[in-house]
Amino acid sequence: METRREKTSPRTRLLIGALAAAALSAGTFGAVSATASTPRQAPAAETAEAADRNVHRTRHLTVDAATRAAQAALKAARQDGRQVTVAVVDRNGTTVAVLRGDGAGPQSYESAQRKAYTAVSWNAPTSDLVKRLETTPTLKDIPGTLFLGGGVPVAVDGAPVAGIGVAGAPSGALDEAYARAGAAALGVR
Amino acid sequence: METRREKTSPRTRLLIGALAAAALSAGTFGAVSATASTPRQAPAAETAEAADRNVHRTRHLTVDAATRAAQAALKAARQDGRQVTVAVVDRNGTTVAVLRGDGAGPQSYESAQRKAYTAVSWNAPTSDLVKRLETTPTLKDIPGTLFLGGGVPVAVDGAPVAGIGVAGAPSGALDEAYARAGAAALGVR
Amino acid sequence: METRREKTSPRTRLLIGALAAAALSAGTFGAVSATASTPRQAPAAETAEAADRNVHRTRHLTVDAATRAAQAALKAARQDGRQVTVAVVDRNGTTVAVLRGDGAGPQSYESAQRKAYTAVSWNAPTSDLVKRLETTPTLKDIPGTLFLGGGVPVAVDGAPVAGIGVAGAPSGALDEAYARAGAAALGVR
Amino acid sequence: METRREKTSPRTRLLIGALAAAALSAGTFGAVSATASTPRQAPAAETAEAADRNVHRTRHLTVDAATRAAQAALKAARQDGRQVTVAVVDRNGTTVAVLRGDGAGPQSYESAQRKAYTAVSWNAPTSDLVKRLETTPTLKDIPGTLFLGGGVPVAVDGAPVAGIGVAGAPSGALDEAYARAGAAALGVR
Amino acid sequence: METRREKTSPRTRLLIGALAAAALSAGTFGAVSATASTPRQAPAAETAEAADRNVHRTRHLTVDAATRAAQAALKAARQDGRQVTVAVVDRNGTTVAVLRGDGAGPQSYESAQRKAYTAVSWNAPTSDLVKRLETTPTLKDIPGTLFLGGGVPVAVDGAPVAGIGVAGAPSGALDEAYARAGAAALGVR
Amino acid sequence: METRREKTSPRTRLLIGALAAAALSAGTFGAVSATASTPRQAPAAETAEAADRNVHRTRHLTVDAATRAAQAALKAARQDGRQVTVAVVDRNGTTVAVLRGDGAGPQSYESAQRKAYTAVSWNAPTSDLVKRLETTPTLKDIPGTLFLGGGVPVAVDGAPVAGIGVAGAPSGALDEAYARAGAAALGVR
Amino acid sequence: METRREKTSPRTRLLIGALAAAALSAGTFGAVSATASTPRQAPAAETAEAADRNVHRTRHLTVDAATRAAQAALKAARQDGRQVTVAVVDRNGTTVAVLRGDGAGPQSYESAQRKAYTAVSWNAPTSDLVKRLETTPTLKDIPGTLFLGGGVPVAVDGAPVAGIGVAGAPSGALDEAYARAGAAALGVR
Amino acid sequence: METRREKTSPRTRLLIGALAAAALSAGTFGAVSATASTPRQAPAAETAEAADRNVHRTRHLTVDAATRAAQAALKAARQDGRQVTVAVVDRNGTTVAVLRGDGAGPQSYESAQRKAYTAVSWNAPTSDLVKRLETTPTLKDIPGTLFLGGGVPVAVDGAPVAGIGVAGAPSGALDEAYARAGAAALGVR
Repeated sequence: METRREKTSPRTRLLIGALAAAALSAGTFGAVSATASTPRQAPAAETAEAADRNVHRTRHLTVDAATRAAQAALKAARQDGRQVTVAVVDRNGTTVAVLRGDGAGPQSYESAQRKAYTAVSWNAPTSDLVKRLETTPTLKDIPGTLFLGGGVPVAVDGAPVAGIGVAGAPSGALDEAYARAGAAALGVR
Repeated sequence: METRREKTSPRTRLLIGALAAAALSAGTFGAVSATASTPRQAPAAETAEAADRNVHRTRHLTVDAATRAAQAALKAARQDGRQVTVAVVDRNGTTVAVLRGDGAGPQSYESAQRKAYTAVSWNAPTSDLVKRLETTPTLKDIPGTLFLGGGVPVAVDGAPVAGIGVAGAPSGALDEAYARAGAAALGVR
Repeated sequence: METRREKTSPRTRLLIGALAAAALSAGTFGAVSATASTPRQAPAAETAEAADRNVHRTRHLTVDAATRAAQAALKAARQDGRQVTVAVVDRNGTTVAVLRGDGAGPQSYESAQRKAYTAVSWNAPTSDLVKRLETTPTLKDIPGTLFLGGGVPVAVDGAPVAGIGVAGAPSGALDEAYARAGAAALGVR
Repeated sequence: METRREKTSPRTRLLIGALAAAALSAGTFGAVSATASTPRQAPAAETAEAADRNVHRTRHLTVDAATRAAQAALKAARQDGRQVTVAVVDRNGTTVAVLRGDGAGPQSYESAQRKAYTAVSWNAPTSDLVKRLETTPTLKDIPGTLFLGGGVPVAVDGAPVAGIGVAGAPSGALDEAYARAGAAALGVR
Repeated sequence: METRREKTSPRTRLLIGALAAAALSAGTFGAVSATASTPRQAPAAETAEAADRNVHRTRHLTVDAATRAAQAALKAARQDGRQVTVAVVDRNGTTVAVLRGDGAGPQSYESAQRKAYTAVSWNAPTSDLVKRLETTPTLKDIPGTLFLGGGVPVAVDGAPVAGIGVAGAPSGALDEAYARAGAAALGVR
Repeated sequence: METRREKTSPRTRLLIGALAAAALSAGTFGAVSATASTPRQAPAAETAEAADRNVHRTRHLTVDAATRAAQAALKAARQDGRQVTVAVVDRNGTTVAVLRGDGAGPQSYESAQRKAYTAVSWNAPTSDLVKRLETTPTLKDIPGTLFLGGGVPVAVDGAPVAGIGVAGAPSGALDEAYARAGAAALGVR
Repeated sequence: METRREKTSPRTRLLIGALAAAALSAGTFGAVSATASTPRQAPAAETAEAADRNVHRTRHLTVDAATRAAQAALKAARQDGRQVTVAVVDRNGTTVAVLRGDGAGPQSYESAQRKAYTAVSWNAPTSDLVKRLETTPTLKDIPGTLFLGGGVPVAVDGAPVAGIGVAGAPSGALDEAYARAGAAALGVR
Repeated sequence: METRREKTSPRTRLLIGALAAAALSAGTFGAVSATASTPRQAPAAETAEAADRNVHRTRHLTVDAATRAAQAALKAARQDGRQVTVAVVDRNGTTVAVLRGDGAGPQSYESAQRKAYTAVSWNAPTSDLVKRLETTPTLKDIPGTLFLGGGVPVAVDGAPVAGIGVAGAPSGALDEAYARAGAAALGVR
């Protein structure tokens, strides 16, 4: 989650409450898209400057990127004859993608999510974080975490944007190798 | 969550795994700040273009704005002699701020969060969403939601960025009035 | 879950307990692959006939098929300018794949899973199942279900093997259309 | 979960969505049987080849076999004057059978399930898995697991299909002995 | 739970704390059997009369009876070509036995338990209890319950001792028929 | 839970399903008392012998005894100037009574319940059970348990019928002393 | 929760952090009593005035009063031949006392707590609150509540301090009568 | 929670049940304010003396004080370039305020709450409590706690009234420093 304040977008407008909902036709129930291309009518009492002061922005892997990474991790595992589950979690701790490989153990689903969550929380591979338990053993009692090899962070400009977690292989080192293969699929060259 | 692709930031770099963690000194355990001002060393195999294709950005209320809104809602309730809890939830469903008013009922804490969550999910006031239950009654069975007056959305450029939920007053109309007072505190003039 | 008894595979062998684990080298912790290509040593006291009597088989979408379906659903939604989450759940109620679309509302993740779960449980679209609530309203109180349009089942030879659930569009009809687009991606021609 | 691709069943047909539900008469609500003996009408756009590519098969203990194993474990414990609970969990982590012995302690129910879950996840007896904690202590933090003697895996052709877990006896060694008695009841001779 | 005070058992002795544990040899961890055939040493300060005043007794189906009932229900369903899950819950709300039929839907496991729980709580078939919702609709909001046909109580001397719940058939009437077949297996003639 | 088979009560009758509910008048919703003094009409197909074979009996502290014990524990703590919570749990793991002392810490409520649960599960004081962790450290991973001084079992004729748990004092030894004071209140002389 | 600011207690002192813990001797672990009779050393930087501005006070039933009320409710039910559970919950939603009557149904424990919670949250009997569902049906979706007769509030000076909930009798009217008997036991004359 | 009995307030009156609700007009649903300035009509059968015997009082940080503390902690962290979450929990374990700093890791929210909960439960900084694990390692298994630096208690007259928890900085020492900055903001001079 990268959090630079927006100072430059003069078109930014805050819109609250009933007005925001007005465009929804009766009989529908769905969520308004969060990427509305057409700005709606803004109430008079607001200004772009106000909105700018109120808002910060965060970066996330797109679902396409997350899927690509997860599939690359699955493929790497399959080439080794391993069945694993792969999860991609963003900096909010929100899961973006999970793919459960054919034949992966039942414990791999939650493990993969937690490894990804842990890696993005500390912006470090879980194999690295395990070592910190030597000095701070209760770190692993934080809910939602799993201090077990197989999770790697993905950062943009030095700030964490996602974690990739793999679980189900016979060792954490293998899980991590597949997670790295997933992360590598996000690069180019 | 507003999701325009970033096309313009040539300095964007993806960084994965062990390198990301290298800067952390031994003995510490904390999360790397997500707003590192100094980009770390990027692996050679990545380019800014790759990162740009992989990333989208979302907007969030700052914690300062969220706190200001919550305090304004509390104040409006107090002026009416009401004790309420106020919650601010972002578009990811993540709670940014909760303030439990002195003397607010125990049920108000979870209610306020769920109203905020519901408002930001559909980008509509919960008093409005209640009406949709006439045609789609099972909408309210979605986990985490509460279809009860007192939640209002906050949008930027037409896209939802947060929900404000208030609970504890003797009616949903009152709860909503206080939530709107909170939202109003985000505007300027 | 299709459950024909296997009568024909004379090579089937049951293996229990300590022997099963013997092949694992020390220092590893991972799950044994469930698709071991090389049958391990079977204890003398067992026969293929015994195993055959004890075992039934079920069919599941492969993770590749599930991913393909989820991506097709996402694509169909995107073409309509909608952000949704897509989940694929197998007949055991186990999630095989989830993809959270960029900008999809926070409520969509759990909704998509529950719609898929509901569709595969009753082997019917959730839009259809909603109608059954007229005569049996408490059906929707079964844990894990969501009786809301957007879930479709996938069957093989008439038996359910998976459910595809979509959530986040402005109506259940739209969600279902995208789910069907996902299911269609599993066919050929 | 054994996952060979089906290549040989030309009658396999994928069926999706509304058609699948058509056969259900009004007023009923139940799940379609997953073992329909009569294949339903397949949509024109699908072919058997498509289905074959999309599907893998897994093996499971039948409920009859699971019950037999659980009863044998209970009997072995009773002969020792011990009251235990026995659980049988399949490779998906899904509980197939649980029998709570008369007088077994309250903690035995969840323990038995977790031991079975752990044994089938790693395809190894839990008494064995305990040893792996020496090198990888956080393995036991994976949700749903219990690294305590009393769980044994059941494999077919080298692939895990179930775990049997026993809890409530005065030691893990005793619990495991009863679990093995249960597994033995699945063999023949 | 039948709760007549025991007045007649002069051998009853209350034993507390450390003495109770003394018989356990070092290195074991298991639960003491709750049916110890040899009364242990009682502390001098207690008398049988004291214990008698402190204790009431409840009746439970044995695990053998519960298994027999569950198997009979499964068999009745199978004869109709239905796959269901069967659960037997005692008057404490404690599950005694669960058998998940081959091919039963994933929703059937929790449903069967809740139906059994509901039937034993009110000592009435769930098909009957559904009717009470007409006058008291919020009865179904009690945690752990499911007001859906398929649960039947088992009583001894007019007091409820267990509930049998079946789920997975296409209607609640069918589920109840199988549950009754299970209950019938507890009778003799 | 003491589980002697009843062989002597010729009046025992099993009653199932709809008949059991017949006596309930319309408009009521409550649970039938489990101690009906008047046996209801038994179906012809059953006999007392059948019921006897199906039923075992367990002993429980009465609520009056449990309350007396809890109050005695509270009083002992108060005399030391300590605020604690006291819980009494029966052999099924079911909480019979909880009293939260004025000023007891928030963590004491769940702690007291878990200590009581643990003591009755193993029929030993939790201070004793802590020592077993030296040889079997994962014993404490069993859900619902707490291996911390302050829980003592209550046994009848050598079989556990309840656990008393105290939490909130500055040490486990103190908590246990108060729990023992509670247990002592169940004796006579 | 009554929330008058304290203006009059000049001895009030705020104490934070490490100093607060200093008095605890090594080897103990327990909670400091919240009613320490001897004020500890206050840091120089604080004053009584500061503390007064920071603090409000709330009233709670003592555990003795709560127990007396619960026992009175149990007794009233017993006189009618009914077995029920009684819970007393304070204005924070915190359970102060629960007594599970001998033979009360398993559903009664959680029901009693929720009725008490609901009554104290709205400071009204739950039988009254049920009527509000006619105009605001989703009120009952607030987590932790149960809109079913049997809960009554207890107020001091017009402000709610506790709720008493009873469950297990054949009707909500009976449950409420017993809850009122409990509340009556708090009065004098 | 400070628990001196009130002996002096002759105006205290207990009010129960239906009367308490009478003032609520139809169509509203909200919670009665817990700080009603006008005492309602008390039933004849009660006296102020009865209420006094039944009631004890506890002290809590006001929401304004809690917010001030949380903001001060956030500010201190921000000055160090750290993003953290801050939580304030009262002596009942009830969260009064949570502020999630911009860019704070996802794990920080629950961590901050648990640290605050732990600090107020034992009235000691969590950095201190960690040391007690050396002699009592299972202390950390108490649900809701986290034994990790970053939580500090706030006491009034030596009795704990709140805990402040901070999470997200690279070390517990830093987290604690920010928590202390928050606590300091409650003092005056």
